[in-house]
Amino acid sequence: MIKKELRAWETVSRKTILDHSKFLTVESHVVKLPDGKIIPDWAWLIIPSASIVLAVTTDNKFICFRQTKYAVEGTSLAPVGGMLEPNETPINAAKRELREETGYEASDWVNLGSHILDPNRGIATMHLFLALNAQKVTEPNSDDLEDQELLFLGQREIEDALNAGEFKILAWSAVVALSLNYLNADKNQQADH
Amino acid sequence: MIKKELRAWETVSRKTILDHSKFLTVESHVVKLPDGKIIPDWAWLIIPSASIVLAVTTDNKFICFRQTKYAVEGTSLAPVGGMLEPNETPINAAKRELREETGYEASDWVNLGSHILDPNRGIATMHLFLALNAQKVTEPNSDDLEDQELLFLGQREIEDALNAGEFKILAWSAVVALSLNYLNADKNQQADH
Repeated sequence: MIKKELRAWETVSRKTILDHSKFLTVESHVVKLPDGKIIPDWAWLIIPSASIVLAVTTDNKFICFRQTKYAVEGTSLAPVGGMLEPNETPINAAKRELREETGYEASDWVNLGSHILDPNRGIATMHLFLALNAQKVTEPNSDDLEDQELLFLGQREIEDALNAGEFKILAWSAVVALSLNYLNADKNQQADH
Repeated sequence: MIKKELRAWETVSRKTILDHSKFLTVESHVVKLPDGKIIPDWAWLIIPSASIVLAVTTDNKFICFRQTKYAVEGTSLAPVGGMLEPNETPINAAKRELREETGYEASDWVNLGSHILDPNRGIATMHLFLALNAQKVTEPNSDDLEDQELLFLGQREIEDALNAGEFKILAWSAVVALSLNYLNADKNQQADH
């Protein structure tokens, strides 16, 4: 691959135009394009970042919820997940959410990357994890506002649910697809030896 | 699976609190929880929805860009994609963006689902597609503001790039992971017969 020189945009200045709550701040940026052109009112969104965790138990069951969420019609399947607390690292948030929402702890963690929600307006970063060898250590202790039901799915069941569109939120389908890729690559590699 | 009855939240009323541009509207909703409790100022975001397309050529190359984007540090690999125009269907937006950005048309389209950006605040829907048997029919004709470089990657190269975190935006890593799942499942099924 020959790497062409690609030029970044510059932030000339920024101001807050809506300070709604800890869940939303809107800024307006003055932005300078590579050709020198100025965009005077580029909208920039800040909502809290989150860690999302697909956990697999020691007997190879995938831990999911069936949930209602305000932005979703009907119900959706969902992995474990939640907002980072102030100064909390993504992996610590992932471990805390798994313990709070399910009462499980996992011994092996796979980092599936940190992914920005929007290429133009930033919005938030989703930190995705696969947690292996999860075992129950305590009772769940969640303050989530939604109704939900805890489920344990086999690999074939979660693959079918993903393909049927039962994970309706982008970060949730992404963590399931990336986890299945990781597990299947691992399996194929083992089969090669 | 026993299905527990899960209760939805209700929108009591909504008002616009920031009408920034066609790229951003912010609403405040009065929301009623299942237990009757009222949240008086739930932030709700509306940005344009988009179609995102991972295209594969007739000689099995994955079409990607290396791009700079305002929300991304350095560069990112990116599939084809862009906002839906008014009254445009997701699949038509996908075909238009593929033609405009690359000059290619594809004969076989796989719908990888419509995924909401945020479970609580909606934000936008990302419509993900895999386009197979893509062939060049014309020159690209894109009005994108960013610098970019067109690349043709082999399957192993795009798998490695995904695992290395080179797709930095959630919808882009999601469309690549879902496409690889689809293609590998297809391959495994063919191997079974």
